Amino acid sequence: MKLTMLGTANSAMVPVYGCDCSVCVSALENPSLRREKSSAFLEHNGKFLLLDANAPDLMRRFPAGSIDKILLTHYHMDHVHSLFDLRWGAGDKISVISPDDPLGCDDLYKHPGILDFSLRAQAFKSFDWQGITITPLPLNHSKLCLGYCFEFDGKRLAYLTDTVGLPKQTERWLKEFPVDWLITDCNYSPIEDPQALASLNHNDFHHILNIDETCRPTNLGLIHVSHHMLGWAEQHPQAFSERLRILNDSEEITL
Amino acid sequence: MKLTMLGTANSAMVPVYGCDCSVCVSALENPSLRREKSSAFLEHNGKFLLLDANAPDLMRRFPAGSIDKILLTHYHMDHVHSLFDLRWGAGDKISVISPDDPLGCDDLYKHPGILDFSLRAQAFKSFDWQGITITPLPLNHSKLCLGYCFEFDGKRLAYLTDTVGLPKQTERWLKEFPVDWLITDCNYSPIEDPQALASLNHNDFHHILNIDETCRPTNLGLIHVSHHMLGWAEQHPQAFSERLRILNDSEEITL
Repeated sequence: MKLTMLGTANSAMVPVYGCDCSVCVSALENPSLRREKSSAFLEHNGKFLLLDANAPDLMRRFPAGSIDKILLTHYHMDHVHSLFDLRWGAGDKISVISPDDPLGCDDLYKHPGILDFSLRAQAFKSFDWQGITITPLPLNHSKLCLGYCFEFDGKRLAYLTDTVGLPKQTERWLKEFPVDWLITDCNYSPIEDPQALASLNHNDFHHILNIDETCRPTNLGLIHVSHHMLGWAEQHPQAFSERLRILNDSEEITL
Repeated sequence: MKLTMLGTANSAMVPVYGCDCSVCVSALENPSLRREKSSAFLEHNGKFLLLDANAPDLMRRFPAGSIDKILLTHYHMDHVHSLFDLRWGAGDKISVISPDDPLGCDDLYKHPGILDFSLRAQAFKSFDWQGITITPLPLNHSKLCLGYCFEFDGKRLAYLTDTVGLPKQTERWLKEFPVDWLITDCNYSPIEDPQALASLNHNDFHHILNIDETCRPTNLGLIHVSHHMLGWAEQHPQAFSERLRILNDSEEITL
């Protein structure tokens, strides 16, 4: 199986509109440094499974008939933005598997168009896609949110965004079933102020180190990064390694 | 003043994703026939006023500092789609003038970012932008919706979307203050079934002829068109003229 990152930034993207920090100025000048909102797709047996749906070119990149299924982590706008255009397509329904969130986002449930939201993912209830076993893992976020572990041929990759730390039950699962890749959000550089830390809705770099120590993944990839986090990372290269690093847009992980 | 159409289609756009009708197949093959969701911008004194905010390339087309104000017709997703990205910009606030809708769209009011939603347009209460007098005109739609008449140097242009027919008070205003251009939605080709007609939320071509007869604009431009409407228009060229026609993406109207 192959996972391709469609985006690796937080909702503000990189460059941040109107920002003159060095990270954003560089990304404005060099398109290869741009980062879209975090999402990805899994490719297996010639089929595509989208992980969240927010890529600005989603409908051109995945022409009609090429999306097998869409798997949503949660219904915050920056993860479902493209569904509002996609729903008005013609032809076959596209199955969207998502957490059982009673509200969804805006009027998606009321006007689903070609999207079928009937399949709901439940924590730890594994299901199959193209021979890959997918296990939904609970996350800590302001909206009902599930990460997913993909297992094929003895290899495991967990895509865990958005979250601040990990729930104990998810930690336990990841300790019992160690993963080759753990991909999670790192919106913030290390935050020292306890009050600020307590109000977070995403991981900072301290959370990442805790997750690394607790779950011991072979590799740990960071996504959903802010321009501030990227600036901090530039100044602290020693905090990263080949096995613990920020992923880039278009990066592919094959297991 | 100059109005440029950023998009002229309904929420499904053209080509409709997955549609194999002749209109959509042609637009898939020929990018000049593509139509984005309906929106526009007014240019005057070197300043830009956006009319709705849904263009897919809005943040690249209008770099930071270039948007003077945003004027919203209503808070349906297909008219405010780009605000969910734009709000997370840095720097100066951008004023968004909109109908006084208590709900807005999704969490825009809760997390406005750099957008300032405090200015509210009220029906028939004119205000000034760069020497242009803007008069909000009530429309008939499933969500609180205002069209806007722009008057400068004795010339008037009314941008009236989304609506099904026009409220009597808006008709009266347009009769009292005849416009050089009336631009409105025409989602549907003529609908004959009275029950279907009664359930519409947008103009069909019958409504357009009624509006033309009642308000007598010098020119009548159609936007928010569906692929069906475009197919019907191809087969009924006699229904259109130089003064009553479907507008195209990127078309400019200078008054």
